[in-house]
Amino acid sequence: MPRIVDHDQRRQELVRHVWALIRREGVDGVTIRNLSEQSGWSSGAVRHYLPTRDSILTFAAEQLAGAVERELRALQLSGPPRAQLEGFLLALLPLDGPSQEWTEVWLAFASAAVRGEQYADAHGILYRDLHATLLEITRSLAGADLLKAATPEQAAVELHALIDGLCLHLLLRQLAPEQAREAVRCRVETMVAAPTTPG
Amino acid sequence: MPRIVDHDQRRQELVRHVWALIRREGVDGVTIRNLSEQSGWSSGAVRHYLPTRDSILTFAAEQLAGAVERELRALQLSGPPRAQLEGFLLALLPLDGPSQEWTEVWLAFASAAVRGEQYADAHGILYRDLHATLLEITRSLAGADLLKAATPEQAAVELHALIDGLCLHLLLRQLAPEQAREAVRCRVETMVAAPTTPG
Repeated sequence: MPRIVDHDQRRQELVRHVWALIRREGVDGVTIRNLSEQSGWSSGAVRHYLPTRDSILTFAAEQLAGAVERELRALQLSGPPRAQLEGFLLALLPLDGPSQEWTEVWLAFASAAVRGEQYADAHGILYRDLHATLLEITRSLAGADLLKAATPEQAAVELHALIDGLCLHLLLRQLAPEQAREAVRCRVETMVAAPTTPG
Repeated sequence: MPRIVDHDQRRQELVRHVWALIRREGVDGVTIRNLSEQSGWSSGAVRHYLPTRDSILTFAAEQLAGAVERELRALQLSGPPRAQLEGFLLALLPLDGPSQEWTEVWLAFASAAVRGEQYADAHGILYRDLHATLLEITRSLAGADLLKAATPEQAAVELHALIDGLCLHLLLRQLAPEQAREAVRCRVETMVAAPTTPG
């Protein structure tokens, strides 16, 4: 009887190593050989799960999108709309272990995409997924007449840029976490009106 | 009599090649050999001006800081404070050839710095120089009682993040130039009051 292997679990183990490799070496550093060294798996074992460089990067981006989505969905946001938006935006900042890891991987993909590596879309991780969510939020705020900005589209562009800029400055250690939190708090406060009725 | 060579001009030629190399390969791609291939100069000629990888990167960062500073100083900003701040911020966005080139080099340095390459400061290009200038501007606006933000420090943090986020989204081609211009326009309009007296 063949040894029973939990293939999903093996792939999950591997993705941690792929992320670690990307964080250390950038997207350019991703090769079967480097991943084998990073993980301690044989090249053959790596290839069994992820046969090419392309499949490694696709897998890493997919898993990143999934992990961030799960984290955001699990947020217990409550209170008035302002507080909920603030909580959502703060969850995007690299202020703890997992979000720092994700943000570093995201930046490596972004940097490679700008240099012409074919990951401009990268399973939505670079822009699309978050932008769609932000737009949903700003539209819902506008629908409730709580958005103090020209349009929901402009508000989403602005919040997205603010967050990605803060992410970069945090990763560069040029900004203290409290400064980033404060920037989010201030921006939400001026952009979103407090509801006139309680709740 | 030895051949007369304009060494400054030779170094200026070289810096264009260094930037092109960084934009194509990232900071990791910078080696004497790659720069020699990129420039068509012999390795010996490259080494004559820039003997080590470190000196190449230092030179690239220095020259970038200088070029951006000259560009910003040359801006003919006029009109009310709002318009001047808007003009300054727009000049930072990668909306034309040179600023796109600079922003790509900046992002490559930033990405390498996050990954632990020792360029966190990189001659101020990653954060320090621009932040100091933004702070000067927001303090001056606050002094004229025109700043609608908690503090000049918070306003500078926020504007800096907004600009760097917009830069990234423009480089990723996820944002149209007009959307970025609009975001800057909106933000300045809500952050800076129009003077009550004409002028």
